[in-house]
Amino acid sequence: MKNKAKNWFEGLRNNLVKMIEDHDGAKFKVKSWKHAGKGGGIMSIIKGDVIEKGGVNISTVAGEFSKKMQQRIPGADKDPSYWATGISVVLHPVNPNIPSMHFNTRYLVTQKRWFGGGMDITPCLDFELETEKFHEDLKQMCNTHDSTYYPKYKKWCDEYFFLKHRNEARGIGGIFFDYLNNDDFEKDFDFIHDVGSFFHKYVNQIITKNKDKNWTREERKRQLIKRGRYVEFNLLYDRGTKFGLETGGNTEAILMSLPPLAEWE
Amino acid sequence: MKNKAKNWFEGLRNNLVKMIEDHDGAKFKVKSWKHAGKGGGIMSIIKGDVIEKGGVNISTVAGEFSKKMQQRIPGADKDPSYWATGISVVLHPVNPNIPSMHFNTRYLVTQKRWFGGGMDITPCLDFELETEKFHEDLKQMCNTHDSTYYPKYKKWCDEYFFLKHRNEARGIGGIFFDYLNNDDFEKDFDFIHDVGSFFHKYVNQIITKNKDKNWTREERKRQLIKRGRYVEFNLLYDRGTKFGLETGGNTEAILMSLPPLAEWE
Repeated sequence: MKNKAKNWFEGLRNNLVKMIEDHDGAKFKVKSWKHAGKGGGIMSIIKGDVIEKGGVNISTVAGEFSKKMQQRIPGADKDPSYWATGISVVLHPVNPNIPSMHFNTRYLVTQKRWFGGGMDITPCLDFELETEKFHEDLKQMCNTHDSTYYPKYKKWCDEYFFLKHRNEARGIGGIFFDYLNNDDFEKDFDFIHDVGSFFHKYVNQIITKNKDKNWTREERKRQLIKRGRYVEFNLLYDRGTKFGLETGGNTEAILMSLPPLAEWE
Repeated sequence: MKNKAKNWFEGLRNNLVKMIEDHDGAKFKVKSWKHAGKGGGIMSIIKGDVIEKGGVNISTVAGEFSKKMQQRIPGADKDPSYWATGISVVLHPVNPNIPSMHFNTRYLVTQKRWFGGGMDITPCLDFELETEKFHEDLKQMCNTHDSTYYPKYKKWCDEYFFLKHRNEARGIGGIFFDYLNNDDFEKDFDFIHDVGSFFHKYVNQIITKNKDKNWTREERKRQLIKRGRYVEFNLLYDRGTKFGLETGGNTEAILMSLPPLAEWE
């Protein structure tokens, strides 16, 4: 099960990297890093003409949670050992007509085991029609697995990606889930599969559709300000960022999600 | 004592604003805001040719601390009432040869009363000679009040303005102090006076010296990346930012410190 998850994440990374490179012309640069416990990760970073800054990080790590963390993580109260594999992707495109796009999934093993992850989209210009279609497609995909998923995971996403201090959503949402375990690895793994494939297809389709659209200086400015909000969310609220920095994770990999350029008025 | 502190902060704000406007040509825009308890503040924001983004915020507020805060604030354990007045200044200059400059002082009254504040400087280019002179002058100023101040407050500043996740200082430091109360208001107020005057003089002098220096694209890039670190510090660590956002403070005034534009590689 561990290997199946790990291999799928690696394959997905390869497909995403290839698709984006085909659009962009630029190539991803690859950097590997070691985890403080066992294992490590590989960061792939692109800075191109379509994706201004994009990162794909995969990692497979193992270790022992601190006493404090043990209380917060399911299945770790008696045995602090963990094993985890995951993929996370953040794309900040040049063209303000293409949203910033975020996706991650992970498989965590303690005395329990589960999948977590999600995807969400942050447009900076009018995106009403695309928003509707994105959610409609996402719902359909979720429904092929379980009709409770989409409403539950959309709500979770909306609640999570919210900037309380601005009373403002980070973007137009998507899905967010954690502790997914139906006591049926194949069923859960199929869903994870489809979440990744959905993201791959969505990125490909929206880049194809919008990469040659023109934009104005004023639209660029709106993009940079929206990216400022993205920075605020990731540094003030994001669990993964906080968890990573607090537990001495790889700073470069953790902050890979920050945009290339951001503005505050 | 409350009025003396409040009036001095207002006078200092007026002097700082005038001095910066004289350098810049641009004018500060003024916005007032109300506090959830009593009182409020006035934000003055400039976006000019010398200061790309600068903010001067003064506020005088009163209210009652939450139960949680009561335990953390001296003199509030039995009576949650507080009164506070303060000034905070952050300047992000256009020219990379001028550092970003930060200063604040406040007077807090609970069942105890004290001053807090500090100033620190964040250059992005080589600044060795200026750093030495800045610290030498700051030390001299502090020594006219108390020879223990400079070593103590410089250390506090170095420890405070530090990005643990990057093992990197935010800038070249300065002084940082809190809970200043020698049971002699005039003595403490004289020090606060001199801290403010020192900052005013320093800003005037470094702008005069460096505002007409040329810079390269590469130096601009170094500036934007250093500003990214500034954002990381303020959103991940800064006590004032966290305190303000958690207690429902004015978001615009709290985040006034963020730079106009920042870059992440």
